[in-house]
Amino acid sequence: MAPTDDPSVPPLRRRGARMRSAVLAATVDVLTEHGLAGTTVGAVARAAGVHETSVYRRWGTREKLILEALAEQLDTAVPLPDTGDLRSDLVGYFGTLASLLATPQGEALLRLSAERDSGLPDHRLAYWTDRLDRGAVMVRRAVDRGELPPGTDPALVIEAVSGPLFTRALISGAPLDEVFATRLVDLVLDGARAVKPGA
Amino acid sequence: MAPTDDPSVPPLRRRGARMRSAVLAATVDVLTEHGLAGTTVGAVARAAGVHETSVYRRWGTREKLILEALAEQLDTAVPLPDTGDLRSDLVGYFGTLASLLATPQGEALLRLSAERDSGLPDHRLAYWTDRLDRGAVMVRRAVDRGELPPGTDPALVIEAVSGPLFTRALISGAPLDEVFATRLVDLVLDGARAVKPGA
Repeated sequence: MAPTDDPSVPPLRRRGARMRSAVLAATVDVLTEHGLAGTTVGAVARAAGVHETSVYRRWGTREKLILEALAEQLDTAVPLPDTGDLRSDLVGYFGTLASLLATPQGEALLRLSAERDSGLPDHRLAYWTDRLDRGAVMVRRAVDRGELPPGTDPALVIEAVSGPLFTRALISGAPLDEVFATRLVDLVLDGARAVKPGA
Repeated sequence: MAPTDDPSVPPLRRRGARMRSAVLAATVDVLTEHGLAGTTVGAVARAAGVHETSVYRRWGTREKLILEALAEQLDTAVPLPDTGDLRSDLVGYFGTLASLLATPQGEALLRLSAERDSGLPDHRLAYWTDRLDRGAVMVRRAVDRGELPPGTDPALVIEAVSGPLFTRALISGAPLDEVFATRLVDLVLDGARAVKPGA
């Protein structure tokens, strides 16, 4: 059951959540069809069947709307595992991310999240800091379980595995799959000095 | 003394090497001023003071010329250390790379190397495979010295450190410096399971 159908949530909140989902989904549709430049608040409002003013009231700017839509799309496509074992969590998470980035849709999603909108303040850093923080939860849990030393920098671990995946998708065009993601996870967890031959 | 001034090199070869340097330097100049789209073989030939046909004879296509110029520029700006110690080599190499990518020139250089020229075959992979192979020499030497296990994948080690640097430069816009590069090198060499608090 979707949270918006929960009868304990007051009708107004429920309508707000449904409006939010509809607008974010419409934003992704418009982005996919018309690209970043063609994604205006007007086009999104028409596609979602809501008033333009409602969109501005909720999101303030076009760019905040677009980044929230991209974040929601990425976070839904790449769920955060919680298996109780760090390696399994990371292999699951980054394996899914690698497979997503290997698709034209996933690459386009990444490309849009990396694009700087000239003439507007650069919101990319806030967006990517949020995505990093989300992934870092897996590492933080492992520190709490005693799997990693207390001084671990969770965001650094996530950057070390995700950076090469993003680089292959956007910069080098090298192939991306779950095997590559798994090899990166093992390298970052165990270190080059310890990684076993063929691992 | 530049190799082209070596009196043991026959005059024709010397002229060839000088022509090559002049054309590659002119290509970087034209790229910096006019971007990828404005960098035609004609513009480069005019800037270098050579015939357009000489450029085509040597490089075949505009894209091969541009990628060779970018590679030469990047490899000159980021020399390959050989200190006899892998950590020192990697910290030196990636510290320099991080500092370069933090400059507008370095970011532009990376952006150009990542750009796909629509309508032309994708040469990015060959370019990036060459750059990876160059960095992997440091890791290969360490394997030969017994610093790393024989089964080490040298390119994977280089990708794990360079990927997060490229990602900060092109995708997230997060700050880049030698401290970040050093922390990545330590993580990739020792592994998250072993990295000391505060390292």
